[in-house]
Amino acid sequence: MIQRLAIIGVGLIGGSLALALRRTGLVEQVVGTGRGRANLERALTHGVIDAIADTPEQAVTGADMVVLAVPVGGMPEVFRRIAPALQDQVVLTDVGSTKQDVVAAARTLLGARVGRFVPGHPIAGAETSGVAAAHADLFRGKDVILSPLPENDTAVVGRVRDMWQACGAHVERMAAEDHDRVFAAVSHLPHLAAFALMDELAGRENSQLFFRHAGSGFRDFTRIAGSHAEMWRDIALANREAVVAELDAYIERLNRVRDLVAAADGAALMEVLSRASHARQQWAQGKMRTGK
Amino acid sequence: MIQRLAIIGVGLIGGSLALALRRTGLVEQVVGTGRGRANLERALTHGVIDAIADTPEQAVTGADMVVLAVPVGGMPEVFRRIAPALQDQVVLTDVGSTKQDVVAAARTLLGARVGRFVPGHPIAGAETSGVAAAHADLFRGKDVILSPLPENDTAVVGRVRDMWQACGAHVERMAAEDHDRVFAAVSHLPHLAAFALMDELAGRENSQLFFRHAGSGFRDFTRIAGSHAEMWRDIALANREAVVAELDAYIERLNRVRDLVAAADGAALMEVLSRASHARQQWAQGKMRTGK
Repeated sequence: MIQRLAIIGVGLIGGSLALALRRTGLVEQVVGTGRGRANLERALTHGVIDAIADTPEQAVTGADMVVLAVPVGGMPEVFRRIAPALQDQVVLTDVGSTKQDVVAAARTLLGARVGRFVPGHPIAGAETSGVAAAHADLFRGKDVILSPLPENDTAVVGRVRDMWQACGAHVERMAAEDHDRVFAAVSHLPHLAAFALMDELAGRENSQLFFRHAGSGFRDFTRIAGSHAEMWRDIALANREAVVAELDAYIERLNRVRDLVAAADGAALMEVLSRASHARQQWAQGKMRTGK
Repeated sequence: MIQRLAIIGVGLIGGSLALALRRTGLVEQVVGTGRGRANLERALTHGVIDAIADTPEQAVTGADMVVLAVPVGGMPEVFRRIAPALQDQVVLTDVGSTKQDVVAAARTLLGARVGRFVPGHPIAGAETSGVAAAHADLFRGKDVILSPLPENDTAVVGRVRDMWQACGAHVERMAAEDHDRVFAAVSHLPHLAAFALMDELAGRENSQLFFRHAGSGFRDFTRIAGSHAEMWRDIALANREAVVAELDAYIERLNRVRDLVAAADGAALMEVLSRASHARQQWAQGKMRTGK
Protein backbone atom coordinates (compact mmCIF):
# COMPACT_ATOMS: atom_id res chain seq x y z
CA MET A 1 0.00 0.00 0.00
CA ILE A 2 1.25 3.47 -0.89
CA GLN A 3 -0.17 6.33 1.20
CA ARG A 4 1.18 9.24 -0.72
CA LEU A 5 2.77 8.76 -4.13
CA ALA A 6 4.78 11.68 -5.51
CA ILE A 7 5.26 11.71 -9.26
CA ILE A 8 7.97 14.15 -10.35
CA GLY A 9 7.21 14.65 -14.05
CA VAL A 10 3.67 13.66 -14.98
CA GLY A 11 4.27 12.70 -18.60
CA LEU A 12 3.59 9.53 -20.56
CA ILE A 13 5.47 7.30 -18.10
CA GLY A 14 4.74 9.10 -14.83
CA GLY A 15 1.09 9.56 -15.76
CA SER A 16 0.64 5.96 -16.88
CA LEU A 17 2.19 4.69 -13.66
CA ALA A 18 -0.23 6.83 -11.63
CA LEU A 19 -3.20 5.55 -13.64
CA ALA A 20 -2.11 1.93 -13.38
CA LEU A 21 -1.59 2.15 -9.61
CA ARG A 22 -4.86 3.96 -9.02
CA ARG A 23 -6.68 1.17 -10.80
CA THR A 24 -5.15 -1.41 -8.46
CA GLY A 25 -6.43 0.53 -5.46
CA LEU A 26 -2.96 0.24 -3.91
CA VAL A 27 -2.40 3.97 -3.73
CA GLU A 28 -4.28 6.45 -1.57
CA GLN A 29 -3.14 9.80 -2.85
CA VAL A 30 -1.14 10.86 -5.91
CA VAL A 31 0.64 14.20 -5.94
CA GLY A 32 2.16 15.36 -9.19
CA THR A 33 4.61 18.06 -10.05
CA GLY A 34 6.44 19.12 -13.18
CA ARG A 35 7.46 21.97 -15.41
CA GLY A 36 4.33 22.34 -17.55
CA ARG A 37 1.41 23.85 -15.66
CA ALA A 38 -1.11 23.06 -18.44
CA ASN A 39 0.02 19.43 -18.46
CA LEU A 40 -0.41 19.19 -14.67
CA GLU A 41 -3.87 20.79 -14.86
CA ARG A 42 -4.85 18.23 -17.44
CA ALA A 43 -3.51 15.43 -15.22
CA LEU A 44 -5.63 16.77 -12.37
CA THR A 45 -8.77 17.19 -14.48
CA HIS A 46 -8.44 13.68 -15.91
CA GLY A 47 -7.98 12.11 -12.48
CA VAL A 48 -4.40 11.03 -13.09
CA ILE A 49 -3.28 12.87 -9.95
CA ASP A 50 -5.18 14.14 -6.89
CA ALA A 51 -3.14 17.27 -6.30
CA ILE A 52 -0.57 19.49 -7.94
CA ALA A 53 2.55 20.40 -5.98
CA ASP A 54 4.29 23.59 -7.01
CA THR A 55 7.76 22.20 -6.41
CA PRO A 56 9.44 18.79 -6.17
CA GLU A 57 10.27 19.45 -2.51
CA GLN A 58 6.59 20.11 -1.81
CA ALA A 59 5.57 16.99 -3.71
CA VAL A 60 7.78 14.65 -1.67
CA THR A 61 6.82 16.11 1.70
CA GLY A 62 4.99 13.33 3.48
CA ALA A 63 5.34 10.96 0.52
CA ASP A 64 6.18 7.31 1.19
CA MET A 65 6.86 6.59 -2.50
CA VAL A 66 8.59 9.00 -4.86
CA VAL A 67 8.97 8.36 -8.60
CA LEU A 68 11.32 10.52 -10.65
CA ALA A 69 9.95 10.60 -14.19
CA VAL A 70 11.77 13.55 -15.73
CA PRO A 71 14.28 13.41 -18.62
CA VAL A 72 17.54 12.00 -17.23
CA GLY A 73 19.29 15.35 -17.61
CA GLY A 74 16.86 16.75 -15.03
CA MET A 75 17.43 14.06 -12.38
CA PRO A 76 20.36 15.71 -10.51
CA GLU A 77 18.38 18.92 -9.99
CA VAL A 78 15.40 16.94 -8.66
CA PHE A 79 17.58 14.89 -6.28
CA ARG A 80 19.20 18.09 -5.02
CA ARG A 81 15.88 19.78 -4.34
CA ILE A 82 14.02 16.87 -2.75
CA ALA A 83 16.86 15.50 -0.57
CA PRO A 84 16.17 17.74 2.46
CA ALA A 85 12.37 17.19 2.26
CA LEU A 86 12.32 13.37 2.23
CA GLN A 87 10.85 11.51 5.18
CA ASP A 88 12.92 8.74 6.74
CA GLN A 89 10.90 5.78 5.51
CA VAL A 90 10.45 7.02 1.94
CA VAL A 91 11.22 4.77 -1.00
CA LEU A 92 12.38 6.38 -4.23
CA THR A 93 12.76 5.08 -7.74
CA ASP A 94 13.17 6.56 -11.20
CA VAL A 95 12.16 5.64 -14.74
CA GLY A 96 15.22 7.00 -16.54
CA SER A 97 16.42 5.30 -19.72
CA THR A 98 20.02 5.38 -18.49
CA LYS A 99 21.15 4.13 -15.12
CA GLN A 100 24.81 4.82 -14.34
CA ASP A 101 24.39 8.59 -14.52
CA VAL A 102 21.25 8.54 -12.37
CA VAL A 103 22.98 6.33 -9.81
CA ALA A 104 25.96 8.69 -9.70
CA ALA A 105 23.65 11.68 -9.16
CA ALA A 106 21.72 9.86 -6.44
CA ARG A 107 24.91 8.92 -4.60
CA THR A 108 26.17 12.47 -4.64
CA LEU A 109 22.93 14.24 -3.86
CA LEU A 110 20.98 11.86 -1.62
CA GLY A 111 23.95 11.14 0.64
CA ALA A 112 23.09 8.66 3.37
CA ARG A 113 19.57 8.34 1.94
CA VAL A 114 20.82 6.66 -1.24
CA GLY A 115 19.86 3.29 0.26
CA ARG A 116 16.21 4.30 -0.10
CA PHE A 117 16.62 4.79 -3.86
CA VAL A 118 16.13 1.84 -6.24
CA PRO A 119 17.11 2.73 -9.84
CA GLY A 120 14.59 1.53 -12.42
CA HIS A 121 13.69 1.62 -16.10
CA PRO A 122 10.35 0.51 -17.53
CA ILE A 123 10.83 -0.68 -21.13
CA ALA A 124 7.66 0.91 -22.40
CA GLY A 125 8.09 4.06 -24.35
CA ALA A 126 6.20 5.50 -27.24
CA GLU A 127 6.80 8.24 -29.74
CA THR A 128 4.03 10.18 -27.99
CA SER A 129 4.66 12.16 -24.84
CA GLY A 130 2.84 14.15 -22.18
CA VAL A 131 0.08 13.05 -19.84
CA ALA A 132 -2.46 13.12 -22.69
CA ALA A 133 -0.82 9.94 -24.03
CA ALA A 134 -0.80 8.18 -20.64
CA HIS A 135 -2.87 5.05 -20.07
CA ALA A 136 -3.22 2.48 -17.32
CA ASP A 137 -2.17 -0.46 -19.51
CA LEU A 138 1.16 0.94 -20.71
CA PHE A 139 3.23 -1.44 -18.56
CA ARG A 140 1.12 -4.56 -18.89
CA GLY A 141 3.35 -7.44 -20.03
CA LYS A 142 6.34 -5.11 -20.38
CA ASP A 143 9.75 -5.45 -18.74
CA VAL A 144 10.86 -3.17 -15.96
CA ILE A 145 14.59 -3.28 -15.24
CA LEU A 146 15.68 -2.63 -11.66
CA SER A 147 19.35 -1.99 -10.90
CA PRO A 148 19.46 -2.21 -7.10
CA LEU A 149 22.34 -0.61 -5.25
CA PRO A 150 24.50 -2.40 -2.66
CA GLU A 151 23.00 0.11 -0.18
CA ASN A 152 19.40 -1.04 -0.86
CA ASP A 153 17.95 -3.44 1.66
CA THR A 154 15.62 -6.19 0.47
CA ALA A 155 12.46 -4.54 1.74
CA VAL A 156 13.12 -1.33 -0.20
CA VAL A 157 13.73 -3.21 -3.45
CA GLY A 158 10.63 -5.27 -2.73
CA ARG A 159 8.48 -2.16 -2.44
CA VAL A 160 9.51 -0.97 -5.91
CA ARG A 161 9.23 -4.44 -7.42
CA ASP A 162 5.73 -4.87 -5.99
CA MET A 163 4.66 -1.49 -7.36
CA TRP A 164 5.64 -2.44 -10.90
CA GLN A 165 4.24 -5.95 -10.68
CA ALA A 166 0.92 -4.42 -9.60
CA CYS A 167 0.95 -2.57 -12.94
CA GLY A 168 1.28 -5.87 -14.78
CA ALA A 169 4.98 -5.49 -15.55
CA HIS A 170 7.63 -8.19 -15.51
CA VAL A 171 10.46 -7.08 -13.20
CA GLU A 172 14.06 -8.02 -13.99
CA ARG A 173 17.38 -7.15 -12.36
CA MET A 174 20.39 -5.94 -14.24
CA ALA A 175 23.54 -4.13 -13.18
CA ALA A 176 23.47 -0.44 -14.16
CA GLU A 177 26.53 -0.84 -16.36
CA ASP A 178 25.08 -3.81 -18.27
CA HIS A 179 21.80 -1.95 -18.63
CA ASP A 180 23.45 1.06 -20.21
CA ARG A 181 25.55 -1.03 -22.60
CA VAL A 182 22.60 -3.14 -23.76
CA PHE A 183 20.17 -0.26 -24.20
CA ALA A 184 22.77 1.83 -26.02
CA ALA A 185 22.61 -0.86 -28.71
CA VAL A 186 18.94 -1.83 -28.84
CA SER A 187 17.31 1.50 -27.99
CA HIS A 188 19.56 4.57 -27.95
CA LEU A 189 21.27 3.77 -31.24
CA PRO A 190 18.06 3.03 -33.22
CA HIS A 191 16.54 6.26 -31.91
CA LEU A 192 19.52 8.34 -33.02
CA ALA A 193 19.63 6.50 -36.35
CA ALA A 194 15.94 7.25 -36.97
CA PHE A 195 16.36 10.90 -35.95
CA ALA A 196 19.36 11.13 -38.31
CA LEU A 197 17.41 9.84 -41.31
CA MET A 198 14.52 12.25 -40.71
CA ASP A 199 16.94 15.12 -40.28
CA GLU A 200 18.81 14.19 -43.45
CA LEU A 201 15.64 14.18 -45.57
CA ALA A 202 13.95 17.13 -43.87
CA GLY A 203 17.01 19.26 -44.61
CA ARG A 204 16.71 18.80 -48.37
CA GLU A 205 15.26 21.51 -50.53
CA ASN A 206 12.93 19.03 -52.21
CA SER A 207 12.11 17.13 -49.02
CA GLN A 208 8.40 17.03 -49.89
CA LEU A 209 9.10 14.91 -52.98
CA PHE A 210 10.75 12.31 -50.74
CA PHE A 211 8.23 12.41 -47.92
CA ARG A 212 5.32 12.14 -50.34
CA HIS A 213 6.51 8.76 -51.56
CA ALA A 214 7.64 7.32 -48.25
CA GLY A 215 5.69 4.15 -47.48
CA SER A 216 5.20 1.70 -44.65
CA GLY A 217 8.86 0.64 -44.39
CA PHE A 218 9.90 4.24 -43.90
CA ARG A 219 7.00 4.78 -41.51
CA ASP A 220 8.10 2.01 -39.16
CA PHE A 221 11.83 2.70 -39.47
CA THR A 222 11.30 6.35 -38.48
CA ARG A 223 8.46 5.97 -35.96
CA ILE A 224 10.79 6.56 -33.01
CA ALA A 225 12.13 9.74 -34.67
CA GLY A 226 8.87 11.36 -33.54
CA SER A 227 10.01 10.89 -29.93
CA HIS A 228 10.67 13.60 -27.37
CA ALA A 229 13.81 15.46 -28.47
CA GLU A 230 14.90 16.65 -25.04
CA MET A 231 14.49 13.21 -23.51
CA TRP A 232 16.68 11.66 -26.19
CA ARG A 233 19.30 14.40 -26.07
CA ASP A 234 19.61 13.70 -22.36
CA ILE A 235 19.86 9.95 -22.88
CA ALA A 236 22.53 10.30 -25.57
CA LEU A 237 24.61 12.58 -23.36
CA ALA A 238 24.04 10.58 -20.18
CA ASN A 239 25.14 7.35 -21.85
CA ARG A 240 27.70 9.05 -24.04
CA GLU A 241 30.48 6.50 -23.99
CA ALA A 242 28.31 3.49 -24.83
CA VAL A 243 26.26 5.47 -27.38
CA VAL A 244 29.37 6.66 -29.23
CA ALA A 245 30.74 3.10 -29.26
CA GLU A 246 27.47 1.83 -30.74
CA LEU A 247 27.34 4.62 -33.32
CA ASP A 248 30.91 3.80 -34.34
CA ALA A 249 30.11 0.10 -34.73
CA TYR A 250 26.97 0.89 -36.71
CA ILE A 251 28.68 3.40 -38.98
CA GLU A 252 31.44 0.88 -39.65
CA ARG A 253 28.83 -1.75 -40.55
CA LEU A 254 27.02 0.70 -42.83
CA ASN A 255 30.32 1.56 -44.49
CA ARG A 256 30.89 -2.10 -45.17
CA VAL A 257 27.45 -2.43 -46.75
CA ARG A 258 28.14 0.73 -48.74
CA ASP A 259 31.42 -0.69 -50.04
CA LEU A 260 29.78 -3.98 -51.02
CA VAL A 261 27.07 -2.14 -52.97
CA ALA A 262 29.62 0.18 -54.61
CA ALA A 263 31.72 -2.83 -55.63
CA ALA A 264 28.58 -4.66 -56.80
CA ASP A 265 29.67 -7.61 -54.66
CA GLY A 266 26.37 -9.46 -54.80
CA ALA A 267 27.61 -12.60 -53.05
CA ALA A 268 28.98 -10.81 -49.97
CA LEU A 269 25.97 -8.50 -49.85
CA MET A 270 23.64 -11.49 -50.03
CA GLU A 271 25.47 -12.99 -47.05
CA VAL A 272 24.95 -9.85 -44.95
CA LEU A 273 21.27 -9.48 -45.88
CA SER A 274 20.49 -13.16 -45.39
CA ARG A 275 22.11 -13.22 -41.95
CA ALA A 276 20.21 -10.08 -40.95
CA SER A 277 16.90 -11.27 -42.34
CA HIS A 278 17.29 -14.64 -40.64
CA ALA A 279 18.20 -12.99 -37.30
CA ARG A 280 15.22 -10.64 -37.53
CA GLN A 281 12.81 -13.48 -38.24
CA GLN A 282 14.22 -15.54 -35.36
CA TRP A 283 13.94 -12.57 -33.03
CA ALA A 284 10.32 -11.89 -34.03
CA GLN A 285 9.43 -15.54 -33.47
CA GLY A 286 11.06 -15.47 -30.03
CA LYS A 287 9.12 -12.32 -29.13
CA MET A 288 5.91 -13.97 -30.26
CA ARG A 289 6.65 -16.98 -28.09
CA THR A 290 7.23 -14.85 -25.00
CA GLY A 291 4.20 -12.72 -25.86
CA LYS A 292 6.03 -9.39 -25.96
CA MET B 1 -10.96 -7.32 -69.43
CA ILE B 2 -7.93 -9.58 -69.34
CA GLN B 3 -8.30 -12.96 -71.07
CA ARG B 4 -5.11 -14.57 -70.00
CA LEU B 5 -2.94 -13.02 -67.29
CA ALA B 6 0.59 -14.38 -66.96
CA ILE B 7 2.26 -13.81 -63.60
CA ILE B 8 5.99 -14.43 -63.69
CA GLY B 9 6.89 -14.89 -60.04
CA VAL B 10 3.86 -15.74 -57.87
CA GLY B 11 5.09 -14.26 -54.59
CA LEU B 12 3.61 -11.68 -52.24
CA ILE B 13 3.15 -9.07 -54.97
CA GLY B 14 2.37 -11.30 -57.96
CA GLY B 15 0.03 -13.45 -55.90
CA SER B 16 -1.78 -10.46 -54.37
CA LEU B 17 -2.27 -8.91 -57.80
CA ALA B 18 -3.79 -12.15 -59.09
CA LEU B 19 -6.12 -12.37 -56.08
CA ALA B 20 -7.17 -8.72 -56.36
CA LEU B 21 -7.92 -9.02 -60.09
CA ARG B 22 -9.80 -12.29 -59.71
CA ARG B 23 -12.05 -10.66 -57.17
CA THR B 24 -12.92 -7.88 -59.63
CA GLY B 25 -13.97 -10.47 -62.21
CA LEU B 26 -11.88 -8.61 -64.77
CA VAL B 27 -9.60 -11.56 -65.49
CA GLU B 28 -10.57 -14.84 -67.13
CA GLN B 29 -7.53 -17.00 -66.61
CA VAL B 30 -4.39 -16.62 -64.52
CA VAL B 31 -1.28 -18.59 -65.40
CA GLY B 32 1.61 -18.53 -62.96
CA THR B 33 5.20 -19.52 -63.22
CA GLY B 34 8.25 -19.22 -61.00
CA ARG B 35 11.24 -20.94 -59.50
CA GLY B 36 9.66 -22.61 -56.50
CA ARG B 37 7.46 -25.56 -57.41
CA ALA B 38 5.98 -25.88 -53.89
CA ASN B 39 5.06 -22.20 -53.91
CA LEU B 40 3.32 -22.59 -57.31
CA GLU B 41 1.43 -25.68 -56.12
CA ARG B 42 0.25 -23.73 -53.11
CA ALA B 43 -0.86 -20.86 -55.39
CA LEU B 44 -2.83 -23.34 -57.47
CA THR B 45 -4.39 -25.08 -54.48
CA HIS B 46 -5.43 -21.77 -52.93
CA GLY B 47 -7.00 -20.53 -56.17
CA VAL B 48 -4.49 -17.73 -56.70
CA ILE B 49 -3.73 -19.06 -60.18
CA ASP B 50 -5.63 -21.39 -62.54
CA ALA B 51 -2.63 -23.09 -64.05
CA ILE B 52 1.09 -23.55 -63.59
CA ALA B 53 3.37 -22.96 -66.56
CA ASP B 54 6.73 -24.72 -66.46
CA THR B 55 8.59 -21.84 -68.06
CA PRO B 56 8.12 -18.09 -68.54
CA GLU B 57 7.89 -18.60 -72.32
CA GLN B 58 5.06 -21.09 -71.79
CA ALA B 59 3.30 -18.72 -69.38
CA VAL B 60 3.21 -15.81 -71.83
CA THR B 61 2.06 -17.88 -74.79
CA GLY B 62 -1.42 -16.60 -75.61
CA ALA B 63 -1.35 -14.08 -72.72
CA ASP B 64 -2.74 -10.58 -73.30
CA MET B 65 -1.31 -9.27 -70.00
CA VAL B 66 2.07 -10.23 -68.58
CA VAL B 67 3.29 -9.12 -65.16
CA LEU B 68 6.94 -9.60 -64.23
CA ALA B 69 7.08 -10.02 -60.46
CA VAL B 70 10.54 -11.49 -59.89
CA PRO B 71 13.44 -9.83 -58.02
CA VAL B 72 14.83 -7.11 -60.28
CA GLY B 73 18.05 -9.07 -60.83
CA GLY B 74 15.97 -11.75 -62.56
CA MET B 75 14.18 -9.41 -64.98
CA PRO B 76 16.73 -9.53 -67.86
CA GLU B 77 16.59 -13.33 -67.97
CA VAL B 78 12.78 -13.25 -68.03
CA PHE B 79 12.69 -10.64 -70.81
CA ARG B 80 15.16 -12.70 -72.84
CA ARG B 81 13.15 -15.87 -72.51
CA ILE B 82 9.67 -14.47 -73.10
CA ALA B 83 10.48 -12.08 -75.96
CA PRO B 84 10.07 -14.65 -78.79
CA ALA B 85 6.83 -16.06 -77.29
CA LEU B 86 4.88 -12.80 -76.88
CA GLN B 87 1.78 -12.24 -78.97
CA ASP B 88 1.48 -8.97 -80.89
CA GLN B 89 -1.21 -7.33 -78.80
CA VAL B 90 0.27 -8.26 -75.41
CA VAL B 91 0.73 -5.64 -72.71
CA LEU B 92 3.56 -6.13 -70.21
CA THR B 93 4.37 -4.48 -66.95
CA ASP B 94 6.59 -5.21 -63.96
CA VAL B 95 6.51 -4.60 -60.22
CA GLY B 96 10.23 -4.04 -59.70
CA SER B 97 11.40 -1.67 -56.97
CA THR B 98 13.90 -0.06 -59.33
CA LYS B 99 13.03 1.28 -62.74
CA GLN B 100 16.04 2.43 -64.76
CA ASP B 101 17.66 -1.00 -64.80
CA VAL B 102 14.43 -2.75 -65.76
CA VAL B 103 13.83 -0.21 -68.54
CA ALA B 104 17.35 -0.76 -69.86
CA ALA B 105 16.85 -4.54 -69.85
CA ALA B 106 13.48 -4.20 -71.61
CA ARG B 107 14.93 -1.98 -74.31
CA THR B 108 17.77 -4.38 -75.01
CA LEU B 109 15.80 -7.61 -74.82
CA LEU B 110 12.31 -6.78 -76.06
CA GLY B 111 13.55 -4.87 -79.11
CA ALA B 112 10.69 -3.44 -81.15
CA ARG B 113 8.21 -4.81 -78.60
CA VAL B 114 9.40 -2.41 -75.88
CA GLY B 115 6.44 -0.15 -76.67
CA ARG B 116 4.15 -2.82 -75.19
CA PHE B 117 6.00 -2.67 -71.84
CA VAL B 118 4.91 -0.14 -69.18
CA PRO B 119 7.34 -0.06 -66.22
CA GLY B 120 5.59 -0.04 -62.85
CA HIS B 121 6.15 -0.24 -59.10
CA PRO B 122 3.41 -0.82 -56.53
CA ILE B 123 4.41 0.80 -53.20
CA ALA B 124 3.13 -2.06 -51.12
CA GLY B 125 5.70 -4.36 -49.70
CA ALA B 126 5.89 -6.28 -46.51
CA GLU B 127 8.61 -8.09 -44.62
CA THR B 128 6.80 -11.29 -45.50
CA SER B 129 7.23 -12.99 -48.85
CA GLY B 130 5.89 -15.87 -50.91
CA VAL B 131 2.36 -16.55 -52.06
CA ALA B 132 1.33 -17.60 -48.52
CA ALA B 133 1.47 -13.92 -47.55
CA ALA B 134 -0.54 -12.73 -50.58
CA HIS B 135 -3.96 -11.16 -50.11
CA ALA B 136 -6.47 -9.38 -52.34
CA ASP B 137 -6.37 -6.11 -50.39
CA LEU B 138 -2.63 -5.53 -50.49
CA PHE B 139 -2.90 -2.67 -52.99
CA ARG B 140 -6.05 -1.00 -51.69
CA GLY B 141 -5.33 2.70 -51.09
CA LYS B 142 -1.66 2.24 -52.00
CA ASP B 143 0.33 4.10 -54.64
CA VAL B 144 1.44 2.45 -57.84
CA ILE B 145 4.10 4.34 -59.75
CA LEU B 146 4.11 3.98 -63.53
CA SER B 147 7.11 5.22 -65.51
CA PRO B 148 5.81 5.08 -69.10
CA LEU B 149 8.30 5.00 -71.97
CA PRO B 150 8.25 7.37 -74.95
CA GLU B 151 7.49 4.22 -76.99
CA ASN B 152 4.26 3.46 -75.05
CA ASP B 153 1.05 4.54 -76.70
CA THR B 154 -1.80 5.86 -74.55
CA ALA B 155 -3.90 2.72 -74.84
CA VAL B 156 -1.11 0.49 -73.54
CA VAL B 157 -0.49 2.71 -70.52
CA GLY B 158 -4.25 2.85 -69.96
CA ARG B 159 -4.49 -0.93 -69.78
CA VAL B 160 -1.90 -1.11 -67.01
CA ARG B 161 -3.36 1.89 -65.17
CA ASP B 162 -6.85 0.34 -65.29
CA MET B 163 -5.54 -2.96 -63.97
CA TRP B 164 -4.04 -1.31 -60.88
CA GLN B 165 -7.01 0.96 -60.29
CA ALA B 166 -9.26 -2.10 -60.34
CA CYS B 167 -7.17 -3.36 -57.39
CA GLY B 168 -7.96 -0.19 -55.46
CA ALA B 169 -4.56 1.43 -56.02
CA HIS B 170 -3.83 5.08 -56.70
CA VAL B 171 -1.79 5.34 -59.91
CA GLU B 172 0.87 8.03 -60.31
CA ARG B 173 3.40 8.78 -63.02
CA MET B 174 7.06 9.44 -62.39
CA ALA B 175 10.13 9.38 -64.62
CA ALA B 176 12.25 6.27 -63.99
CA GLU B 177 15.23 8.36 -62.94
CA ASP B 178 13.21 10.36 -60.39
CA HIS B 179 11.66 7.16 -59.12
CA ASP B 180 15.03 5.54 -58.48
CA ARG B 181 16.44 8.62 -56.74
CA VAL B 182 13.42 9.06 -54.46
CA PHE B 183 13.09 5.40 -53.51
CA ALA B 184 16.81 5.08 -52.86
CA ALA B 185 16.24 7.58 -50.03
CA VAL B 186 12.87 6.57 -48.60
CA SER B 187 12.97 2.82 -49.16
CA HIS B 188 16.28 1.30 -50.24
CA LEU B 189 18.37 3.15 -47.65
CA PRO B 190 16.10 2.37 -44.66
CA HIS B 191 16.07 -1.29 -45.67
CA LEU B 192 19.87 -1.49 -45.85
CA ALA B 193 20.15 0.47 -42.59
CA ALA B 194 17.80 -1.96 -40.84
CA PHE B 195 19.63 -4.99 -42.28
CA ALA B 196 22.92 -3.45 -41.10
CA LEU B 197 21.74 -3.05 -37.50
CA MET B 198 20.45 -6.61 -37.32
CA ASP B 199 23.68 -7.91 -38.82
CA GLU B 200 25.77 -5.88 -36.38
CA LEU B 201 23.94 -7.25 -33.34
CA ALA B 202 23.51 -10.80 -34.64
CA GLY B 203 27.26 -11.02 -35.18
CA ARG B 204 28.07 -10.42 -31.52
CA GLU B 205 29.00 -13.29 -29.26
CA ASN B 206 26.48 -12.16 -26.65
CA SER B 207 23.78 -11.23 -29.19
CA GLN B 208 21.06 -12.93 -27.13
CA LEU B 209 21.61 -10.48 -24.27
CA PHE B 210 20.86 -7.62 -26.67
CA PHE B 211 17.95 -9.24 -28.47
CA ARG B 212 16.30 -10.24 -25.21
CA HIS B 213 15.98 -6.62 -24.13
CA ALA B 214 15.04 -5.11 -27.48
CA GLY B 215 11.63 -3.46 -27.27
CA SER B 216 9.05 -1.87 -29.51
CA GLY B 217 11.34 0.86 -30.88
CA PHE B 218 13.81 -1.76 -32.03
CA ARG B 219 10.97 -3.90 -33.35
CA ASP B 220 9.66 -1.19 -35.67
CA PHE B 221 13.09 0.10 -36.69
CA THR B 222 14.15 -3.38 -37.78
CA ARG B 223 10.87 -4.73 -39.15
CA ILE B 224 12.03 -4.33 -42.75
CA ALA B 225 15.23 -6.23 -41.95
CA GLY B 226 13.08 -9.37 -42.06
CA SER B 227 12.55 -8.74 -45.78
CA HIS B 228 13.58 -10.98 -48.64
CA ALA B 229 17.37 -10.89 -48.83
CA GLU B 230 17.68 -11.70 -52.52
CA MET B 231 15.11 -9.08 -53.51
CA TRP B 232 16.99 -6.39 -51.59
CA ARG B 233 20.40 -7.46 -52.82
CA ASP B 234 19.05 -7.06 -56.35
CA ILE B 235 17.53 -3.65 -55.59
CA ALA B 236 20.75 -2.37 -54.00
CA LEU B 237 22.80 -3.48 -56.99
CA ALA B 238 20.27 -2.35 -59.60
CA ASN B 239 20.07 1.14 -58.11
CA ARG B 240 23.72 1.16 -57.07
CA GLU B 241 24.62 4.75 -57.81
CA ALA B 242 21.67 6.33 -56.01
CA VAL B 243 21.89 3.85 -53.13
CA VAL B 244 25.58 4.55 -52.55
CA ALA B 245 24.88 8.30 -52.65
CA GLU B 246 22.15 7.90 -50.04
CA LEU B 247 24.31 5.67 -47.84
CA ASP B 248 27.09 8.27 -48.02
CA ALA B 249 24.72 11.08 -47.03
CA TYR B 250 23.29 9.01 -44.19
CA ILE B 251 26.69 7.93 -42.88
CA GLU B 252 27.83 11.54 -42.93
CA ARG B 253 24.75 12.58 -40.98
CA LEU B 254 25.30 9.78 -38.45
CA ASN B 255 28.92 10.85 -38.09
CA ARG B 256 27.75 14.35 -37.31
CA VAL B 257 25.38 13.06 -34.63
CA ARG B 258 28.20 10.87 -33.29
CA ASP B 259 30.53 13.86 -33.04
CA LEU B 260 27.88 15.96 -31.26
CA VAL B 261 27.33 13.19 -28.71
CA ALA B 262 31.07 12.64 -28.25
CA ALA B 263 31.57 16.38 -27.72
CA ALA B 264 28.56 16.49 -25.37
CA ASP B 265 27.21 19.37 -27.47
CA GLY B 266 23.71 19.31 -26.06
CA ALA B 267 22.52 22.46 -27.80
CA ALA B 268 23.47 21.33 -31.33
CA LEU B 269 22.20 17.81 -30.65
CA MET B 270 18.90 19.23 -29.41
CA GLU B 271 18.59 21.16 -32.69
CA VAL B 272 19.04 18.01 -34.77
CA LEU B 273 16.63 15.93 -32.70
CA SER B 274 13.98 18.66 -32.55
CA ARG B 275 14.09 19.19 -36.31
CA ALA B 276 13.82 15.45 -36.91
CA SER B 277 11.04 14.94 -34.38
CA HIS B 278 9.08 17.87 -35.80
CA ALA B 279 9.51 16.59 -39.37
CA ARG B 280 8.40 13.10 -38.38
CA GLN B 281 5.30 14.41 -36.64
CA GLN B 282 4.43 16.61 -39.62
CA TRP B 283 4.89 13.71 -41.99
CA ALA B 284 2.69 11.40 -39.91
CA GLN B 285 -0.03 14.02 -39.78
CA GLY B 286 0.12 14.48 -43.55
CA LYS B 287 -0.12 10.73 -44.04
CA MET B 288 -3.13 10.63 -41.75
CA ARG B 289 -4.78 13.39 -43.75
CA THR B 290 -4.31 11.58 -47.04
CA GLY B 291 -5.39 8.31 -45.42
CA LYS B 292 -2.24 6.36 -46.26
